[in-house]
Amino acid sequence: MNKPVLPGGLWPAMLTPCDEDGRVNPAQIERLVELFVAQGLDGIYLLGATGQGLALSVAERQQTTELTLRAVRGRLPVVVHVGCIATSDAAALARHAAEHGATGLSAVPPVYFPASIDAEFAHYEQISRAGGIPFLPYINTVLAGAFSMPPARYVERLLELPNIVGAKVTTFDLNAFGLLSHYARGRLLLYSGADELICQAMLSGASGAIGSSYNLFGPECRRALFACSAGQFDATRHYMQVYQAVIEQATSAGGYYHFLRTGMRLRHGIDIGPGRTPACLAGRRWTEAEVQTLIATLEKGMPA
Amino acid sequence: MNKPVLPGGLWPAMLTPCDEDGRVNPAQIERLVELFVAQGLDGIYLLGATGQGLALSVAERQQTTELTLRAVRGRLPVVVHVGCIATSDAAALARHAAEHGATGLSAVPPVYFPASIDAEFAHYEQISRAGGIPFLPYINTVLAGAFSMPPARYVERLLELPNIVGAKVTTFDLNAFGLLSHYARGRLLLYSGADELICQAMLSGASGAIGSSYNLFGPECRRALFACSAGQFDATRHYMQVYQAVIEQATSAGGYYHFLRTGMRLRHGIDIGPGRTPACLAGRRWTEAEVQTLIATLEKGMPA
Amino acid sequence: MNKPVLPGGLWPAMLTPCDEDGRVNPAQIERLVELFVAQGLDGIYLLGATGQGLALSVAERQQTTELTLRAVRGRLPVVVHVGCIATSDAAALARHAAEHGATGLSAVPPVYFPASIDAEFAHYEQISRAGGIPFLPYINTVLAGAFSMPPARYVERLLELPNIVGAKVTTFDLNAFGLLSHYARGRLLLYSGADELICQAMLSGASGAIGSSYNLFGPECRRALFACSAGQFDATRHYMQVYQAVIEQATSAGGYYHFLRTGMRLRHGIDIGPGRTPACLAGRRWTEAEVQTLIATLEKGMPA
Amino acid sequence: MNKPVLPGGLWPAMLTPCDEDGRVNPAQIERLVELFVAQGLDGIYLLGATGQGLALSVAERQQTTELTLRAVRGRLPVVVHVGCIATSDAAALARHAAEHGATGLSAVPPVYFPASIDAEFAHYEQISRAGGIPFLPYINTVLAGAFSMPPARYVERLLELPNIVGAKVTTFDLNAFGLLSHYARGRLLLYSGADELICQAMLSGASGAIGSSYNLFGPECRRALFACSAGQFDATRHYMQVYQAVIEQATSAGGYYHFLRTGMRLRHGIDIGPGRTPACLAGRRWTEAEVQTLIATLEKGMPA
Repeated sequence: MNKPVLPGGLWPAMLTPCDEDGRVNPAQIERLVELFVAQGLDGIYLLGATGQGLALSVAERQQTTELTLRAVRGRLPVVVHVGCIATSDAAALARHAAEHGATGLSAVPPVYFPASIDAEFAHYEQISRAGGIPFLPYINTVLAGAFSMPPARYVERLLELPNIVGAKVTTFDLNAFGLLSHYARGRLLLYSGADELICQAMLSGASGAIGSSYNLFGPECRRALFACSAGQFDATRHYMQVYQAVIEQATSAGGYYHFLRTGMRLRHGIDIGPGRTPACLAGRRWTEAEVQTLIATLEKGMPA
Repeated sequence: MNKPVLPGGLWPAMLTPCDEDGRVNPAQIERLVELFVAQGLDGIYLLGATGQGLALSVAERQQTTELTLRAVRGRLPVVVHVGCIATSDAAALARHAAEHGATGLSAVPPVYFPASIDAEFAHYEQISRAGGIPFLPYINTVLAGAFSMPPARYVERLLELPNIVGAKVTTFDLNAFGLLSHYARGRLLLYSGADELICQAMLSGASGAIGSSYNLFGPECRRALFACSAGQFDATRHYMQVYQAVIEQATSAGGYYHFLRTGMRLRHGIDIGPGRTPACLAGRRWTEAEVQTLIATLEKGMPA
Repeated sequence: MNKPVLPGGLWPAMLTPCDEDGRVNPAQIERLVELFVAQGLDGIYLLGATGQGLALSVAERQQTTELTLRAVRGRLPVVVHVGCIATSDAAALARHAAEHGATGLSAVPPVYFPASIDAEFAHYEQISRAGGIPFLPYINTVLAGAFSMPPARYVERLLELPNIVGAKVTTFDLNAFGLLSHYARGRLLLYSGADELICQAMLSGASGAIGSSYNLFGPECRRALFACSAGQFDATRHYMQVYQAVIEQATSAGGYYHFLRTGMRLRHGIDIGPGRTPACLAGRRWTEAEVQTLIATLEKGMPA
Repeated sequence: MNKPVLPGGLWPAMLTPCDEDGRVNPAQIERLVELFVAQGLDGIYLLGATGQGLALSVAERQQTTELTLRAVRGRLPVVVHVGCIATSDAAALARHAAEHGATGLSAVPPVYFPASIDAEFAHYEQISRAGGIPFLPYINTVLAGAFSMPPARYVERLLELPNIVGAKVTTFDLNAFGLLSHYARGRLLLYSGADELICQAMLSGASGAIGSSYNLFGPECRRALFACSAGQFDATRHYMQVYQAVIEQATSAGGYYHFLRTGMRLRHGIDIGPGRTPACLAGRRWTEAEVQTLIATLEKGMPA
């Protein structure tokens, strides 16, 4: 690839701040965008699982897309996740995001309603054609048809999609990741969606990483990617072990959203609201002191 | 249970007829309702997976609920599936369905966004409380927390839900089904969601069956349930084997929706439209002759 | 099938009594055989998982086979399980069992070392050809290649095996069971290996049942099979629910072997010894009173 | 850890050469040992899955252990895998290996007979106590109880085992690997059993690697480990992608054993024989030219 259409590096899967009543919160969206710009992160992935895209209405997703793109003002590339249960809804969102200046589009595999691999690719095709801008499906080895066929063949099928430029690949199986990368031979930008393995994924051919925890820990993780690329083996290994343990604790007992909410307020002064997925209804309620402890642990483990 | 709030027997998971452009089709909804009334089926399960509920907007689901309830005019009980990705959407639908005269409510477990068992039950609770009418969660051993705890304990948690009267249980694992039934000791109406095992499920304590194929084959399956209850062992076994093979073929090669569409037109003169989930974009396209052959196979296998 | 080579009905997967030091116990084997003969059970399945076959040496398995066949003296058909990790060991056991008068042979799918479906069938073929007597592979939907291909095709592959007469099918998925039965069209004797679903399996085409719990509860389960075939729907349903709950409790907390040991001593005066698989090293230790309670529960639930 | 009891680095899971009739082949064992010594590899893992340990009799395993230890003459550490289906067999092998001078012992989790996590640890304890020398269980996330409990707790349970010094951890899930390493805090030597991810595993805390493909490609993989530790990021990434693709092709179509056999003869002049597991009965038969092509691909991809 001569000049990639999108930069690699660290992309937060942006949270979607809402107010206490669940309404999209324009002021906090602006603050979050400014945070990412100020931190020098590499791009924004909007309205994915972290941004609760599939739990918002089509109208709310359009509103969030417009608010974010307006706040970004071209200072960072923005990939908008438009995956929906109904193909027609996803295509409408793709059209909307492209019209409002999104840099690229992404979509999860078919959700809830089982779909064959042919149906999955037909779904992607309608979405990507509707948008007409760079497309990166969100490959998830649980949901996707990935690897129900040989990886070389899967890569070729991806490359037949209109506007395809890469993929967000969320898996702990880095052999699968590496085989995708090998057979893509530079024709796909692969972003790792497993926050806990960003540096290991770089060794497996990742161009960058997209994930939820970078809302909170973007600069630290970006520095880890550099340390890895620069060959700082010991520092990288140390940081990754600390990071894995922090994430393991943060996601335990069903309290990850509440951890992120508390952490964003403490560390960045941003309120993302109570959340609207069922997961937000229960699970561990973190104290500020507990969250501070994990943040401090992470900061101490960071490569110098 | 002295007098069950809902009858057992055979309940079609009603298809949601739409026109070629994907709009809900009032005329065909009326015809489908009349068919079920004329066939003497026992109830209607509305807007579940078969009715593509989760692929419709909140407004479309409300429209479909109103159209159906108006067409039914109290001649059959109607349970409306209101499960959504966002708990608040599901609660709004529950309120709406109750206000328009639904007999009961149902909801699938949390979709797409992973949720702990506590979050799952909190989700159900908000939905059922919003509706205030009989509630039957849709237990699916893949999605649900069922059986990540001992069945006796799971039953007790179900019984703590407000307005609970039973459940739609979709599983091929009839040991799990039977244990639920055993520990419920008559306090829950359990409907089998596995069309291929309706009579085996009766032996495991099912009160009835809810499924997609009864749109097409309601009277035959209802007769099979009677044959089983009446102790016609050989006829029941024969019919179930034929039915399993028909379903296996109908669902092969990703063509089940198209099979149902073709069959409904041929057998009942009702057009359900092209469907809107990704699965409808690909898969086997059935000829009328092929569908007729399967219908004839099924008819021949029916208990006398 | 005009005259089946093996009777259906209830076959205990016979325990292999050993003494306290783990040596095969001839006297207790004789007593166990006499029990099954006196109870009028339909056959004996020797040295399967219940009989700890794979945990015994080749020499111990040959000894057990000879002792059992000598004790049976042709009064019951005996199918000897000869499955081993190494194909050559299994073939040697097959030859030995046939030479000593076994009625049939069985073998589990390849164990521990992953094998393709072609390797699985090649393994069966060498075993069955070495024995030269009726063969019934032990199909287990977890271990076996079953259903990684369409069931109609799987049945045809089974029927290509030399000496094939049927299969022991251990699965809770009675749709899979029923499809095998449907496509076999009377050419295979299918025995259900899921004790908890014997009557439901009869409705799915089973000829009989092979299982561990019939060492303890043979006559009761045999009566349940008759009640089901005779169309006693309510009694069958009631008994199966009681049986499922008894098995669920007996297998809980890793104590099933100890439950069987205690039960066999209490109910039948036979000592099967401490067991030699890792599972016997830990798990619930049942008191006699607890086991008596479960036995009494089962007896009360039995069809009249 | 001040001075580890075992070196890290690259350990082949040694093949067990047999003759055409399946008998253990002393001459080829000696040649294989001399190869590993001459290549400067770091240790030998004997009679694991690659060495077909579980497909050999107890006597054959003792013979192989004696032949190998005699050939090695202390020039390399040798860890003998003694895992068996019966705990008593494994304990006997452990005693034998220790008496004949093995450096350490290893054992897979309970095989075939399901065992609770308590039974698994009781099984390990009896084996390790019988041996009385350094012990490394073979943790496999499919078979083992690993991660059915929190990783921190799992590590503590491992550390309660007598003689424990580390583990062979076979998983593609490097988050799980990294968490084990994190919570072990230097108290366990962790060897990666996933050949395709050796360098990624180093970043997750691995001390070394144990695997089948190092029989064939030991020096190349050892160099890759050094390149990774030395911070040669680009070379490491390139090599790992090539290696993953070579393994993916070598293991495709059920032909991995035959690939290894052909490769060992071509590259090292050693005949390992036809193999005795079911997998050897079927699958792709490699031509010498095909194997040479993969070997050449691997050699070209090696870090300089």
